[in-house]
Amino acid sequence: MSDALGKELDIVDSNAMNSTPLLRSITSPADVKTLPSSQLKELCREIRITLLKYGHEHGGHIGSNLGMVEATVALHRVFDSPHDRIVFDVSHQSYVHKMLTGRALAYLEPEHFNEVTGFTNPDESEHDQFVLGHTGTSISLACGIAKTRNAETASNGTSGIGNVVAVIGDGSLSSGVAFEGLNNAAEQGGNLIIIFNDNEMSIAGDFGGMYGPLAKLRASGGTAQPNIFNAFGLDYRYVEAGNDVDALIAAFEEVRDINHPVVVHIHTLKGAGYEGEPVNGNASRPFQHTSTTDEAEGIVSTNNVLHSEPWHSDHCNLSDHEPHEGQCEASHWQNPDASLGRPEDPRKYYGKMAMAALEPRFASEPGLVVISPATPGSNGITHEFRERAGAHYVDTGITESHAVAFAAGIARAGGTPVVATTASFFQRAYDQFFQEMSLNRSRVTVLDFLGGLSGSDNTHSGAYDLAMFANIPQVTMLAPTSGRDFLDDLAWATLPAGAAGAPDGAVVIRVPGEGILAAERDSSLLPITGKHGTVRSDCTLDGMLAWRVNQQGSQVALLGLGNTYPLAERAAAALAERHGITATVIDPKQCTSLDTEALESLRKRHPLIITLEDGQLEGGWGEKITAYYANHWQRSAQDKPTARNPRVLNFGATKEFTDRVPLAELNDRYGLTVNSIMAAVTRCF
Amino acid sequence: MSDALGKELDIVDSNAMNSTPLLRSITSPADVKTLPSSQLKELCREIRITLLKYGHEHGGHIGSNLGMVEATVALHRVFDSPHDRIVFDVSHQSYVHKMLTGRALAYLEPEHFNEVTGFTNPDESEHDQFVLGHTGTSISLACGIAKTRNAETASNGTSGIGNVVAVIGDGSLSSGVAFEGLNNAAEQGGNLIIIFNDNEMSIAGDFGGMYGPLAKLRASGGTAQPNIFNAFGLDYRYVEAGNDVDALIAAFEEVRDINHPVVVHIHTLKGAGYEGEPVNGNASRPFQHTSTTDEAEGIVSTNNVLHSEPWHSDHCNLSDHEPHEGQCEASHWQNPDASLGRPEDPRKYYGKMAMAALEPRFASEPGLVVISPATPGSNGITHEFRERAGAHYVDTGITESHAVAFAAGIARAGGTPVVATTASFFQRAYDQFFQEMSLNRSRVTVLDFLGGLSGSDNTHSGAYDLAMFANIPQVTMLAPTSGRDFLDDLAWATLPAGAAGAPDGAVVIRVPGEGILAAERDSSLLPITGKHGTVRSDCTLDGMLAWRVNQQGSQVALLGLGNTYPLAERAAAALAERHGITATVIDPKQCTSLDTEALESLRKRHPLIITLEDGQLEGGWGEKITAYYANHWQRSAQDKPTARNPRVLNFGATKEFTDRVPLAELNDRYGLTVNSIMAAVTRCF
Repeated sequence: MSDALGKELDIVDSNAMNSTPLLRSITSPADVKTLPSSQLKELCREIRITLLKYGHEHGGHIGSNLGMVEATVALHRVFDSPHDRIVFDVSHQSYVHKMLTGRALAYLEPEHFNEVTGFTNPDESEHDQFVLGHTGTSISLACGIAKTRNAETASNGTSGIGNVVAVIGDGSLSSGVAFEGLNNAAEQGGNLIIIFNDNEMSIAGDFGGMYGPLAKLRASGGTAQPNIFNAFGLDYRYVEAGNDVDALIAAFEEVRDINHPVVVHIHTLKGAGYEGEPVNGNASRPFQHTSTTDEAEGIVSTNNVLHSEPWHSDHCNLSDHEPHEGQCEASHWQNPDASLGRPEDPRKYYGKMAMAALEPRFASEPGLVVISPATPGSNGITHEFRERAGAHYVDTGITESHAVAFAAGIARAGGTPVVATTASFFQRAYDQFFQEMSLNRSRVTVLDFLGGLSGSDNTHSGAYDLAMFANIPQVTMLAPTSGRDFLDDLAWATLPAGAAGAPDGAVVIRVPGEGILAAERDSSLLPITGKHGTVRSDCTLDGMLAWRVNQQGSQVALLGLGNTYPLAERAAAALAERHGITATVIDPKQCTSLDTEALESLRKRHPLIITLEDGQLEGGWGEKITAYYANHWQRSAQDKPTARNPRVLNFGATKEFTDRVPLAELNDRYGLTVNSIMAAVTRCF
Repeated sequence: MSDALGKELDIVDSNAMNSTPLLRSITSPADVKTLPSSQLKELCREIRITLLKYGHEHGGHIGSNLGMVEATVALHRVFDSPHDRIVFDVSHQSYVHKMLTGRALAYLEPEHFNEVTGFTNPDESEHDQFVLGHTGTSISLACGIAKTRNAETASNGTSGIGNVVAVIGDGSLSSGVAFEGLNNAAEQGGNLIIIFNDNEMSIAGDFGGMYGPLAKLRASGGTAQPNIFNAFGLDYRYVEAGNDVDALIAAFEEVRDINHPVVVHIHTLKGAGYEGEPVNGNASRPFQHTSTTDEAEGIVSTNNVLHSEPWHSDHCNLSDHEPHEGQCEASHWQNPDASLGRPEDPRKYYGKMAMAALEPRFASEPGLVVISPATPGSNGITHEFRERAGAHYVDTGITESHAVAFAAGIARAGGTPVVATTASFFQRAYDQFFQEMSLNRSRVTVLDFLGGLSGSDNTHSGAYDLAMFANIPQVTMLAPTSGRDFLDDLAWATLPAGAAGAPDGAVVIRVPGEGILAAERDSSLLPITGKHGTVRSDCTLDGMLAWRVNQQGSQVALLGLGNTYPLAERAAAALAERHGITATVIDPKQCTSLDTEALESLRKRHPLIITLEDGQLEGGWGEKITAYYANHWQRSAQDKPTARNPRVLNFGATKEFTDRVPLAELNDRYGLTVNSIMAAVTRCF
């Protein structure tokens, strides 16, 4: 951080109670309304200081909130929440809103930091409309609220709902559903106010054809055509001074109680108030907009923040990126400064590994393309890699549906697409996975990051990825258990079309998670094999799908899928030590087909089979094995049934949403521990 | 049909070989190129006559193809497929393309009708790029092909791919992914030609704010602003005479080999050449555009064709809709005239039933809203109902993502949304089901039409809906087995917020299919109960989730989910008759939770449990029951294990895509027959 900011924060620290008196006096939006106008700027200053300090100590989506300080104060000055309903898109930019709706202490005092989530949440406050975390749905949600208000008013002459306001950023606008919402908003009619928060910073490198015309629209003070909002039949207003609280109040007052949908385009500065490092020798100039976008390349990955995970993403890595004057990668403070120096998380670790493996091939494979729907940085697709990759890397904006269809097109033309993003974001492309990718046997490689259990919030959990991907016909889903396997899987999945042994369709690779990375760092976590990474002899489809038996034993077979494989080894070691049982230990490597040869071979000496997976059991992997034996029952007069028909126990996650529950606690909850497995075995014998 | 058309078709019929000499001479696009210019109009006339005759005899998406006759001839005159790549959006409008690429006989001669699918298919021809059937992805797919061409050219100076052309209609453009594609197209750069086929007819009632500005754009000859394509940074051309083959050839020649993305907006007449009934006393005027859209209301459901199922949708119901002059609901010829008089299919039957149940509530429940993402007619949401429903019905365009988020907004405001569409289209809203709907416990009712097995093509199969919906946390999915249960389920799901016993979140109702409707029409298909529809005493969550034991027996329990329930009764009757076994017969009514009390009660006297479901087994329902017993094993020294631990056999679909396989054949393939169940039981005892 800059010296100046550091000093300011020190002052805040030493005199916290006195430095934010106005903010501390706000207990509800009513207090924002009664504040003298002359104090609003001071309130904004206090909020900004609070955000900066909070960002350093706790981490979070600070950049977007810094840009929205004045707009949020103006919203609560003009509108009457919760009678008026405000829907924040993604809602990562709702910190200021939370401060003004009775939750300021959660940002002011570290002991209260964990009292709020990173997104809006109706359980926290009547001022929050939805639990969100994915982009682009605010307009549709607001349309729904407005629709009900319209209906009540038409029926009863009155409604409990006043103005309906959607707040959406320029990055979120690249999501298809946001356009669907825009197209429906004008059609619906009635009061609906769409605040378009344009900070020019949501798309890496400004990818997207609409951003040029949007820049011209800004440059013209909102008068130029083509105006995309007008093209959707919407009324439109422009506010250049998007960080001027008085200008915003005036603009919002003008549209309050308006009788039709309107877009209020506000030009804000992401990270406003953060004093970034000087660029090209210039001192940083907070609150000053820049007119060019090329310079913004240096902060390319700040867009991640719009569609990223607050618990797993980049720390404030000032060293990686040159900040753009005034703008700042403060939005990148996903982990606080205090966490700097921690070892790399598995997403970055394996993501970088994958990119390093692909990069040398670019020169000879023109059709090899890495596609990231807007969140490269979180997945180890570094700024430096992207620069070197050139046309071999495409950021499509926050557009998972397009990204997967685009990849299918590349595959159809003989290219080799690799699409990388977070498991829960891929939910956006479910239909394209079915149709464009799988049905068409498009040779698309999907890198599925953060699949499986983690301490994520409820909107970003990867616990459902097996149920999503592995039940789609003609998909091969691999779950590598080491970096070496991961690279083998990637090499196989991206074999040039027509190469011997190449896959005949789409391959999803579940990028290894914490369990695997921990084992790679500490081989004692793999007591049976001691190390990962048997070299494969046979990279054909059959070879890739064959399960790997790492220890041949009897009585119990432990099948550990993906991230749970190290647990299988540890449980086997404990069984040997405490019960003298040498268990069979299997790394299935994939989860889309059963190795029936392996399953049949287990019948003879394994009355108990245990499956482990770090995802939801229902619709997941282990139940397929249970069903296999149940539906392939063997009868024999002389045998006990169980001698030939193993009993199968499935360990994995309950069908539920979990919110920021630490991974270790989830593993305990779901029995994914050595002790729990041992207890189950003991009960069975 | 009109007398004039009838006569023309008679002439065609009596003299088929001679009436289409030009079309019959076209064996590949090369033949289109060598035809004298003067004969192109005649070729178009022959194609049009062929389409009309084919539509009457076979059914299909005729309206859209009639509008695309000249454009398709012009495409193959100007471009050089397959070196140039043409991607048809949805590809329902590709019949003319198929005729010109060696497949004319499949439209000319009834014995060849089944040689082509209703959509493009690379297995049929090198001129077809993808198997499609859902909207809006053509631009993204084309971007992918163009990207690979650009990369090859940059690397090698040449590429095997020339021009890349996407053909997309105005209805498809309402899909979010289409906007994502537009936004990425300009960004990518290089040759890419987007043919925007604007027939003003793709959205019921012209829902969508963009259609007003689009109308002005047409009226201005393509010069007015705002121009939505310009707003996405795209170059733009306009062709008013979209059914004039010479004008189209000139326009396409102008953009051939263009070095950047361009939109060619062509104004076509859907159904051009079909002589509809007179409107307001005026004779129909084929090939004449109309300038107002209000009149088009009468053909509101013709939009279905863009996003509908050719095997199950409306026949040409001239009596239902007043055609718009020149335009025609020929696009509605999903079944040929010959099929008129068939009994209503289950989608329409139960859809009408549901709407009839909801309609009387509109007067007292202002917040009760039926939402259809563009395909009402196929699901029994008739034009007449929509007119009467007024604001209680919303067509959101082809926007499943928006529709579900919109519904969540309505629910949040205290309204009661009911979202209805086809199972496979709901795949587009998978993320909104997870986030906006389920995570937020939004009280959304989903009517899931065509769920389960059917003779559908591979892009519209409902075999995957259980795996999609039932594995999402906090969703309740009901599978009613009669009209009466269906209405009970709907009444419960739509209980006003806060009503006693109301659901605490989203409810998906799988609309009954052919198996249930057949049983309702013929009660002998229900030999155990004789009839459906036990009145429920208890519409609480617990009551709704409790399984219904319709016959208490022993040895075998038959659990028939949803559409397979009548099969469970028939199998039980056969067991009684042939083996003297009185089986227990259960209608589980729902598939998102297990009735553990019922499962436990089966242990004692049921060594065998058979689950039946008409969907994919992997990720489906029956495996959950298998897993339940496996993971709740009971040990007892004196019992044989099987006496307390039933063996479970699962009957359902394999994980695969199927294409227009008749339902009876699928049931045979998957063992969903009385004989197959009997054989399994025999093997077990």
